[in-house]
Amino acid sequence: MLCLKAPTHPEWVHVAATHIADIMRDHAHCEKKAAFNALNLIMRYPDKHDLVREALVILEEETAHFKLILGELEQRGLSLGIDAGNPYAQQLSSIISKREPMRLLDSLLVDCLIEARSCERFTLLAGCESIPPDIRGIYHTLMASEEGHYTTFVAIAKRYFPANLVDQRLEEIASYEATIVQSLTNQPAMHG
Amino acid sequence: MLCLKAPTHPEWVHVAATHIADIMRDHAHCEKKAAFNALNLIMRYPDKHDLVREALVILEEETAHFKLILGELEQRGLSLGIDAGNPYAQQLSSIISKREPMRLLDSLLVDCLIEARSCERFTLLAGCESIPPDIRGIYHTLMASEEGHYTTFVAIAKRYFPANLVDQRLEEIASYEATIVQSLTNQPAMHG
Repeated sequence: MLCLKAPTHPEWVHVAATHIADIMRDHAHCEKKAAFNALNLIMRYPDKHDLVREALVILEEETAHFKLILGELEQRGLSLGIDAGNPYAQQLSSIISKREPMRLLDSLLVDCLIEARSCERFTLLAGCESIPPDIRGIYHTLMASEEGHYTTFVAIAKRYFPANLVDQRLEEIASYEATIVQSLTNQPAMHG
Repeated sequence: MLCLKAPTHPEWVHVAATHIADIMRDHAHCEKKAAFNALNLIMRYPDKHDLVREALVILEEETAHFKLILGELEQRGLSLGIDAGNPYAQQLSSIISKREPMRLLDSLLVDCLIEARSCERFTLLAGCESIPPDIRGIYHTLMASEEGHYTTFVAIAKRYFPANLVDQRLEEIASYEATIVQSLTNQPAMHG
């Protein structure tokens, strides 16, 4: 699926289904951080016109998703609460080069892989029959959007870097992502 | 006007009118940073529900303004380019306490004063006859929105702090803001 080199452990979706409120809260925080990452790209690279335009679309969409999930939490009497953090994303981000221009390429590809993994996990949640249909419907709606973001991040990368370099680095980061995913302990979090 | 304790120097609007492309670019960067500040409030205080909801509305509006001004730049063949920074906002932000809960109160009131000053300057630009009418129209449109944000930031502050403390601290920060504005040298920037 997409560029992912290892599937999510089959146990994760069962843990998620039995802690669906935790998943929804963590998901809201993920959307918030995805909006932040998109805006951060605009903050860091305002002179790259195409990047700014594409990141702006992603910022709008992630903000809308955050608002959607916040509304779903409110409807269920759940609060957003503090952000427990995302060790998966933190570990994955440690591969990002400290030096430009590789920092930009790595940032785009790490964002791309997080979107791809989110898309895989939304698919699992949308198809899990022990999750209430209204909640499964939310994840079904978001699957296509996350897949679109995955494609967009690769497209932005290929706008500023040679295609073969992008493909090669995506392979490397996807392999690293797979080792991280295989080490996860099926916690009730979107990337747990 | 609003809570401002010193008017902008009369010379500034003439400098702005003769460097309108610089003003438009700097304005786009200001909207981008206003969106970032709103999102940053959500990142820092996700457990404060009313703050999250209000900051989310501001984030959506500032993002829309950024998109609007980016489109206006593009229509005129102008690029956003790098962000030259905003010494006014940086100096004003130095008054923000490093410790909670005052850090939150000060952050909200600094954002409030930046919005109030922007509103004052949009009014000057909208009324300046040597600026082309289509560009004056943009600033006229944004005036009301910035005034709304000013009010919102004070309202959020009063949701979490006693009203008399908010009013007293707003007085202090407004006085500090006035000294900064009086020291500005009429550069072709939104807060120059």
